[in-house]
Amino acid sequence: MNSVLEQVYAHRSIRKYQDRDIEQDVLEKILEASTFASTSGNMQAYSIIVTRSKEQKKKMLKAHFNQPMLMDAPVFLTFCADFNRMRKWIKHKEAANNFDNFMSFMIATIDATLASQNAALAAESLGLGLCYMGTTLASADKIGEVLKLPKNVVPIVGFSLGYADERPEMRSRLPLNSIVHYETYSNYTDNELDEIYSDKEREGLKRYRSDTELNKKLNKLGIENLAQIYTQLKYTEESHIKYSEDLLSYIKEQCFI
Amino acid sequence: MNSVLEQVYAHRSIRKYQDRDIEQDVLEKILEASTFASTSGNMQAYSIIVTRSKEQKKKMLKAHFNQPMLMDAPVFLTFCADFNRMRKWIKHKEAANNFDNFMSFMIATIDATLASQNAALAAESLGLGLCYMGTTLASADKIGEVLKLPKNVVPIVGFSLGYADERPEMRSRLPLNSIVHYETYSNYTDNELDEIYSDKEREGLKRYRSDTELNKKLNKLGIENLAQIYTQLKYTEESHIKYSEDLLSYIKEQCFI
Repeated sequence: MNSVLEQVYAHRSIRKYQDRDIEQDVLEKILEASTFASTSGNMQAYSIIVTRSKEQKKKMLKAHFNQPMLMDAPVFLTFCADFNRMRKWIKHKEAANNFDNFMSFMIATIDATLASQNAALAAESLGLGLCYMGTTLASADKIGEVLKLPKNVVPIVGFSLGYADERPEMRSRLPLNSIVHYETYSNYTDNELDEIYSDKEREGLKRYRSDTELNKKLNKLGIENLAQIYTQLKYTEESHIKYSEDLLSYIKEQCFI
Repeated sequence: MNSVLEQVYAHRSIRKYQDRDIEQDVLEKILEASTFASTSGNMQAYSIIVTRSKEQKKKMLKAHFNQPMLMDAPVFLTFCADFNRMRKWIKHKEAANNFDNFMSFMIATIDATLASQNAALAAESLGLGLCYMGTTLASADKIGEVLKLPKNVVPIVGFSLGYADERPEMRSRLPLNSIVHYETYSNYTDNELDEIYSDKEREGLKRYRSDTELNKKLNKLGIENLAQIYTQLKYTEESHIKYSEDLLSYIKEQCFI
């Protein structure tokens, strides 16, 4: 063990924040940490948008599914896939065209995501808490509009950031040997699935059943297990098909396909 | 400053490795670190394939553009977007269908990439070096075949991993204020582009010019600046259009579109 591993192993998503701002020098250390992540060809194909203003947050609130942590946290960081800067530069330098295609979108997505995780760990090491919000991707088009993103820039991941006002327990993880495969992928039998998901099942059902409103919903929908919670309550096929269509249209609109 | 920030700021990509294996318990600490990254809905939609065997590496070598570090490093880790495990589980539990769509592919891509960056920092904290290889994505289809990935699993990022046999200098980064935007995106003027890319320009030209073979190539192609190196030598539009087509076909073949 060492202090970096301890920090990594200590991660909890923080959804409740103290009414306390983040000092600008602390924020800059976190942002600076992003830039030390690996990037494809050292191109740094990402941008980070810092949202502190209440008005901007309000404009994004619906796109973030009205989650209160957007308003409660002093800062929201949106990490965007960005080939706009690079494409403006190559044009200015009379170099050949590129990076307005799907491969470039994926490269920039990876760059932005790696940068975000460095920022997340840096933030936690400085005593802050954060929660990634998947709504950043699900509402990429609407958020892009609020942040005034030009073509070739797309929001990928984002997190609320502030001083924690809760100490949640660690969420259960799948056993390491179910995530890691040696040499080739080994597929899962039904018995193995029951086993590797058993902790999540127990924890997930407990979380949902202990909330009176949610429990009513489960009963109404005839939901009996966690897998059904995932695909009948949390993430329906219908919603995901809609997000997929919207995201693909937006990627096209942003000139990445 | 603290030890986590020091680790983050100390990152260098390592391409030369000692002829020394990685102890299994060290490797497991690194893999374990991955699982503490945030994942969408705590679904952990990724798998990690560990390649130690020389035969497997040889089979992947061409797909990784014959880069020697694949063979020289004792371990290669491939982080894959994986909704196969989850989809097998929801089917087994008689839950509704989902996660065979583009949104799910992107969610799993982000999960895999966040996990990889935790592993990278954990590895560096344990005295190892690594280099992300973008060929993992560029050759996702060919690598997927070698790793025997089922449907709904796609290689996204990968890195060679071992004890460093070099101490490279820090590569230059764009200034922080060119990466970060407050409240809304502020686009770049030509003068700003010249300024923010000036360190990269100087460093990049020096790297290429100091290599006799590469310098000949630059002269032959009439390349005068770094932007032209990027799009006329390193990443041509033609190659990126081909990668984009191959990747989109593979994502379809893997049932994510």
